[in-house]
Amino acid sequence: MPDAALLAIDWGTTSARAYRVAANGDILDSRSAPLGISQVAQARFAEALASLLGDWRDAPVPRIACGMIGSRQGWIEAPYNDCPAPLADLAAGVVHTPDRELAIVPGVRARDANGMPVVMRGEETQILGGVDDREERVLLALPGTHSKWALVESGRIVQFVTFMTGEVWHVLITHTILGRLAAAPPAGAAPGAGFERGLTRGLGAGSILHDAFSARSLALMNELAPEEVSDWLSGLLIGREVRSARVWAHRHGYDGARVRLIGDEALVARYTDAMTRDGISVIPVASNAAARGLWRIARSAGLVAGRH
Amino acid sequence: MPDAALLAIDWGTTSARAYRVAANGDILDSRSAPLGISQVAQARFAEALASLLGDWRDAPVPRIACGMIGSRQGWIEAPYNDCPAPLADLAAGVVHTPDRELAIVPGVRARDANGMPVVMRGEETQILGGVDDREERVLLALPGTHSKWALVESGRIVQFVTFMTGEVWHVLITHTILGRLAAAPPAGAAPGAGFERGLTRGLGAGSILHDAFSARSLALMNELAPEEVSDWLSGLLIGREVRSARVWAHRHGYDGARVRLIGDEALVARYTDAMTRDGISVIPVASNAAARGLWRIARSAGLVAGRH
Repeated sequence: MPDAALLAIDWGTTSARAYRVAANGDILDSRSAPLGISQVAQARFAEALASLLGDWRDAPVPRIACGMIGSRQGWIEAPYNDCPAPLADLAAGVVHTPDRELAIVPGVRARDANGMPVVMRGEETQILGGVDDREERVLLALPGTHSKWALVESGRIVQFVTFMTGEVWHVLITHTILGRLAAAPPAGAAPGAGFERGLTRGLGAGSILHDAFSARSLALMNELAPEEVSDWLSGLLIGREVRSARVWAHRHGYDGARVRLIGDEALVARYTDAMTRDGISVIPVASNAAARGLWRIARSAGLVAGRH
Repeated sequence: MPDAALLAIDWGTTSARAYRVAANGDILDSRSAPLGISQVAQARFAEALASLLGDWRDAPVPRIACGMIGSRQGWIEAPYNDCPAPLADLAAGVVHTPDRELAIVPGVRARDANGMPVVMRGEETQILGGVDDREERVLLALPGTHSKWALVESGRIVQFVTFMTGEVWHVLITHTILGRLAAAPPAGAAPGAGFERGLTRGLGAGSILHDAFSARSLALMNELAPEEVSDWLSGLLIGREVRSARVWAHRHGYDGARVRLIGDEALVARYTDAMTRDGISVIPVASNAAARGLWRIARSAGLVAGRH
């Protein structure tokens, strides 16, 4: 196996994943650990990094990370860059830990149409790993706990938006009355008819505060099986996110007919279904977008040799 | 004090309140206990009722209840009436417990514009306690854990809708990342600038899945004080409920310019603020709407003497 030229780390709230990246940008290997910043006691991040890297720790190559490790609760704060955020600015904003063990990519912030701040940490790197500077206009979606949608023009993140879809689904099914009539779906089963029906409602107009309650009333009327309740709610929320994101994209001059999708396999499948139903062409991005983004930023920052 | 002609009980999920009602409908007295159906072990409802009534239990008068006590998880199921639901039909649908200790009012169900079922138990009685059969068209709002809005025409509940506003606020502030930067507001303080700002956003267009996240990003940018986060979110959700309910009322031919408001004092104050900001004239209903509704239904059911 070739030597690594960079160790790239996607370091979030609950977990961290490290990649060995070769001099040509190829990803050689990866390993992950449940060492997200909320899991590291007393801010012992140097120890957590050594534990994550294991026998990679002695490689004499630079290390760069993105994500919540650069937040106020992380190792050292890497202040937000403002949108529009080109890759070169993110590279210039990289902050080093006092022991120089790790370079950390800044987060990005913007204002929505109502003047509300929006922020991200980690997704900016995945986004830049999923585009090419020569592409004039790209609309990306990154589904997750806090989904992001972003507009990228010639390698600059010009605007983005957050939807709390994953977390809202989780708390509604776990902590509200909606979970009372729900049974766990069969393990490993693909989302079925319940998801499709929730999606139909979600892609239509409505108020989440009202529509979510249908997950209970449908079950109460025996019109939804207990093991479909969770998927119905997932379909409702994902559909509503897609609908709202298209309104947002339109406002910024995008028709939203083509979306590049970055995320884990199961979520990408659900969002692909939702977007296809809404007439959107979906272009999935290869996994490891974070690693590719970290590689690009590290080169631009001069941490590794190569074209900037 | 005059004798009671009826014991009327508003029996919900977490608590129960009993009223002594005089032969002329006046409410003489009330007492409550944390004996909602979720608090009663092994369905020992007869014991719970005796405990709630205390020294009223020997009064030789009929007893009637509304609320979750008539659900499948309650004492005995009182099947839903369909909308439009006139008072006489609710009275005809009253179910008696096997020991004849208690008459229970049925819940009401309807279909929303998308064919989704909507249900309520208890609010139908409050609604009928807040109107008069001679009123041609009334729009009512009952804010709460699961807010209801209802259209009542000549004493018939013709349509209603549910919003999970109270419960969604609770789980977002308690169980999601939005609570992380929040501090408890000063005890007993009226909602302040944070609530007003959230209301401004809530009364505008947008997606809850996106807008709710501003409760975090505003705090992160020091644009919202920690003790304002919870109220900002309350304002957002209440504002959005009011906005969505007006759309719903419009669809049913109501302009939504006058709303009768039934609920506890603190919530009524927040909703009055929201509605007034939205140009709505608010008519608050005297408390004890449930007791008045139970009295009307008991008369119509022939449980107590009087005009039907």
